[in-house]
Amino acid sequence: MKILSLSLILLLAATVSQGRPSLPLPRLIELLTSANEAELSEEQRLSISYPNCRSWHLGVETSNIINFQTVPANCKDYVEDYLTSEQYRADSKTVCKEAYFYAKGLALKNDTVNVWIFDLDETLLSNVPFYAQYGYGTEKQDPNAFNKWLEAGEAPVLPETLHLYQNIQELGIEPVLLTERYQELAEVTLKNLEAAGFTYWRQILFKPTGSNTKISNFKSKERKKLVRSGHTIIGNIGDQWADLAKDSPGRRTFKLPNPLYYKN
Amino acid sequence: MKILSLSLILLLAATVSQGRPSLPLPRLIELLTSANEAELSEEQRLSISYPNCRSWHLGVETSNIINFQTVPANCKDYVEDYLTSEQYRADSKTVCKEAYFYAKGLALKNDTVNVWIFDLDETLLSNVPFYAQYGYGTEKQDPNAFNKWLEAGEAPVLPETLHLYQNIQELGIEPVLLTERYQELAEVTLKNLEAAGFTYWRQILFKPTGSNTKISNFKSKERKKLVRSGHTIIGNIGDQWADLAKDSPGRRTFKLPNPLYYKN
Repeated sequence: MKILSLSLILLLAATVSQGRPSLPLPRLIELLTSANEAELSEEQRLSISYPNCRSWHLGVETSNIINFQTVPANCKDYVEDYLTSEQYRADSKTVCKEAYFYAKGLALKNDTVNVWIFDLDETLLSNVPFYAQYGYGTEKQDPNAFNKWLEAGEAPVLPETLHLYQNIQELGIEPVLLTERYQELAEVTLKNLEAAGFTYWRQILFKPTGSNTKISNFKSKERKKLVRSGHTIIGNIGDQWADLAKDSPGRRTFKLPNPLYYKN
Repeated sequence: MKILSLSLILLLAATVSQGRPSLPLPRLIELLTSANEAELSEEQRLSISYPNCRSWHLGVETSNIINFQTVPANCKDYVEDYLTSEQYRADSKTVCKEAYFYAKGLALKNDTVNVWIFDLDETLLSNVPFYAQYGYGTEKQDPNAFNKWLEAGEAPVLPETLHLYQNIQELGIEPVLLTERYQELAEVTLKNLEAAGFTYWRQILFKPTGSNTKISNFKSKERKKLVRSGHTIIGNIGDQWADLAKDSPGRRTFKLPNPLYYKN
């Protein structure tokens, strides 16, 4: 934070002294201001302790705690216990049941294609077996190791969401999968989904391989395209607030529990 | 829901047959459509059971479960245990600590009045002693009984929020209280707040006595007025999603736990 501000000040000074802006001046000022208003620095964040891990978890689920890099070290056991417990199953079932009753209560119009958006990881499929090998979220993720895991295509199903996935189809709602997984993982992902019991989708949308677009922006853009092309987004379910944020989130959104990681 | 739709259909039929609309036709059609798309009917809602009360509570905190009239009867013990436990204290402390560290990390501008919005009930003051006498939220609230409780002015403090309230002032942020309590309760409310340790506020805004405006709309309107009159809403804390919704919610919002009731 402070380093960023200092760099911007130096850049601003350089700009002024050279007479030729390296960045447009209004943009430089905007960057300076937003750097000052940005979130906690790493050191500030490290100085917050979370002695009560259940409270930490609730904070994550409610969007009170955001932008965390790793699960607090002292909460490793809590996260392991939770994710291997009946409570995780019950929490997920409660969300999916609520989603289903909501969908069931609607009178759907037939002059549109009614769709339900499903995120993929920690929504349809579980990566807990990977995280179990890597400290249940307390370790910074090794992207190579994670990619190997994804390519193995052996992520188990999250049964409550599969149940919802099937049930909304019986109501005449089409599932659309929207994932931040890169396009290059499409083949193994489709196989993994089919093995897990997901046998139909209207569309499955992957993030362009190598794209640096924020997840919330990528998903928002894809949903707007759906809306513009004759779809009505009846519902949207995911494990990250980023799955449910920004434009065209859906008539109603549902958040599944996930204490393992935070995505923007 | 079905009764509402039927009434509207009859009204529409009456309108057409009489030739003189009792309501403008577009409005009738809008009502019909929105009734169809509205939330669960009471019978549908009653048919959802919540065998796992901790899951139900998490659903409420995450906005997955909305618009409930009462706590599920089988969850009375859970709610009582939670609200009289250390977990409630720890959960509240975690939210307030996060809010404080967020505020502390900001570089505040001095060309504005930086304010923090505080809700009142179940945010600064606790009505748990009232709800303890009335089934911990499992009973439909008797407005007369509740009003008597409010007029007694003996709601105890929520200490974690008092701590945050004091701390943000040390950072140069002004507290503004924004409550759905009616203006007629102003005198007893101010006394209750002072007795609880809240000794200063920049403004305290009550809902006009007898107003039927939805809480979320009332609070949104008041916050927009603040923004238009030279205030910057740095943060906003409350126990209802309705405290944090719609326009000008604040740069960042924080939700305190509350399984007792749901307000719109």
